[in-house]
Parts: sequence; structure tokens; C-alpha cells
Amino acid sequence: MDIALDTFEVRTGGRCEMVDITAEVAGVVGKSGINDGECTVYCKHTTAAITINENADPDVVEDILLTLEKLIPKDLDGYRHIEGNSDSHVKSSLFGCSEQILVKEGVLLLGTWQGIYFCEFDGPRTRQVIVQVIG
Amino acid sequence: MDIALDTFEVRTGGRCEMVDITAEVAGVVGKSGINDGECTVYCKHTTAAITINENADPDVVEDILLTLEKLIPKDLDGYRHIEGNSDSHVKSSLFGCSEQILVKEGVLLLGTWQGIYFCEFDGPRTRQVIVQVIG
Amino acid sequence: MDIALDTFEVRTGGRCEMVDITAEVAGVVGKSGINDGECTVYCKHTTAAITINENADPDVVEDILLTLEKLIPKDLDGYRHIEGNSDSHVKSSLFGCSEQILVKEGVLLLGTWQGIYFCEFDGPRTRQVIVQVIG
Repeated sequence: MDIALDTFEVRTGGRCEMVDITAEVAGVVGKSGINDGECTVYCKHTTAAITINENADPDVVEDILLTLEKLIPKDLDGYRHIEGNSDSHVKSSLFGCSEQILVKEGVLLLGTWQGIYFCEFDGPRTRQVIVQVIG
Repeated sequence: MDIALDTFEVRTGGRCEMVDITAEVAGVVGKSGINDGECTVYCKHTTAAITINENADPDVVEDILLTLEKLIPKDLDGYRHIEGNSDSHVKSSLFGCSEQILVKEGVLLLGTWQGIYFCEFDGPRTRQVIVQVIG
Repeated sequence: MDIALDTFEVRTGGRCEMVDITAEVAGVVGKSGINDGECTVYCKHTTAAITINENADPDVVEDILLTLEKLIPKDLDGYRHIEGNSDSHVKSSLFGCSEQILVKEGVLLLGTWQGIYFCEFDGPRTRQVIVQVIG
């Protein structure tokens, strides 16, 4: 089994933001030289997430963030965590801190409208994303 | 490392629906001849998802769909995406577009009550599911 | 490819609870002797989940559970599943029944504040967690 591991940084600009990192992930896959296998995109933070969603209309990610904000308000009666970002932790677990994408002939097997997003839920911050390709 | 990759179609009949695809996935694992490893079930669409949940009482998936509908209404004040399916995109990221199931002695290591479901959130449509087995 | 597979039990004490299983998972990785690869933590139950979230302030997991309880009440008008735990099934699919963590030099590549949690949504029960390491 061949393994390639790489890390890159994402600088976010707002409290909640979805940043398209598809090109960075594809770059790691290409550099790995691995033709067939699996790519894992992993976020080392507990107030952020990785998700896959539409890459065509930028309104989609805005609507996703709006829905999350309405579902999980910043202040909920009963919150005890002193940092005031319990909502960010909930969003992180709901979307999940990693995604797996299949790799075929050196290319990510994404659907036509799928992009890979780093989801910031407690920014702005500088974040780390790990990408591992096995094959 | 051995790899087997296969694709099959799912034809959905309603706007929101959960279709049990366990038999199709198990078929790909069986055909692969791989005894021990991991199976990834991946959905190439941004208004659909893959999840694992109860396969015994069909009321469970109905209740899951009902809950999602109440949590994330089709029309939310402020939605900008013109296609009118922003709720479907949110549900897709909440459930996630893939699942990993372990494989032992050629069989999916599912729990007694676990089935693999394709989740349609913007149907009816014809959808594609990719299954990859590595071992 | 090397594979190590192990199972351990989690005994939960309440209806909803998040149990830190990081040490147990790290133990399986250590025992496997696999240096570089991927670790999958899998839950065989449909009213429980696996998630990764903050391991420092115990208030965070309490706030997460509180948010889920408010979002998805135990009784929703229209629920049909007779066991009365439809909310538990929904939470299971929202958080997901598995997590993948990368392994480098024999160690789980978790972030500083990340712990791996077994999420009980219909306890108290005795539950099974499967851990597989490939590399």
C-alpha cells in the first residue's frame, strides 16, 4: 500500500464560512502519484468541519450557513461552556471532521457539482487541513 | 492492496425517500473477492446522502424523514438559491455523502439492525452510487 | 496491506451520553503495530454514533447533548415507530456511525483538543465499538 500525507492551511475571514478546498486536495492527490485508492480530508479542529456540497452557485453555501445559524443559535438557554462557542462544536459534529473521496486514474471521483469545503464555525482563524491518499 | 470499484443506479420515487441499498452493496463486496478490508459507499450528488440506520421497522425511516422536514423546512426566510432546494443541500451535508463499512471474511460488518440507505432529498431522480472495496 | 481489527464494549449510564473512547482506540492502534495508515471507529448500533469533539472542557459535550435534545425532541407529532426512540435514530444519522482518523508513526493524528466519543442516544445499554487499522 502506498501512502501520501500532506497538510495545508486555510485562513478564514468570518465567524462562519465555507471555503472551497477542492483544488488543494486535488493537488495533493496529483502529487502523490497514486492512481487508484481513497483520499481522506481531515480537519484537526473541534469548531470546524469538512463537507462536500455544490460548487456551482455560491448561494448554496450561504443558504447552508444561514440554515445552520437558525437551527443552532449562538446562545441557547442552558449552555455552560464558558468560551461561548458551543454552537460551533455542535455544527462540527453535525457535519463531521472528515470526508473520504475515491480516487480513480489519479483523479478525485467527485460528482459534477461536488466541491470539497472547509467549514469554519468559529473564525476568523488560521486552520490546518490534513490530506491522506492511500492506494 | 486490492481494489474493486463498481457503480449502480437508484431510481427514487418521491422528493424525500430513503432506499435500502444494503443488498446492492453486499453484492459488490461479494463480487470483489476481497475478504478483509473496508467498503466505501459514495453518492455523487449534492442533494442526496448515504446513511446507516434501522432496517427492521420501516416506520423508522419515515420518522427520520419527518424530523428532517420539520427541522429544515423547504422554504426558509432568507434563502437565495434560485432552484428552491437549499433544504436538500443542507440535509445532504448533515447526513454526509458517504459511509465506510468494515469487511471481514468477505462480509460487511453491519450490526443486526443496520441497513445502508441512499437518501433522496430532491427527487424523484435517477441517482448514481459508487462502491469501492479495498483490502 | 496490514489490517488489525478489534472490538470493545462501552457501558453507558444514561439515555444520552458522550463517552470518551480515545484511549481505547489509541490502544488498538498501538497494539496493531501499524505505523502509517488509517483507523476506522465503527458503531454497530442505530441509536448511537461516533463523533470527534473537544476533550478539554466537559461542558462542551453537555452543551452538545442539550442542543440535540432541543433540536430533536423525544416526541414529535407524527412519529410512528412504536419503540418511542425515533429521536435516537435521527441523532445517529446526524452524527454518523463511524469516524476515520489518520495514523502516522503509530499515533492517531488527532488535533490538540480532539477526543473520540461514543455517543449514546438511547441508553443505558452495553454497546460494541469496532476499531480497524489499515496500513
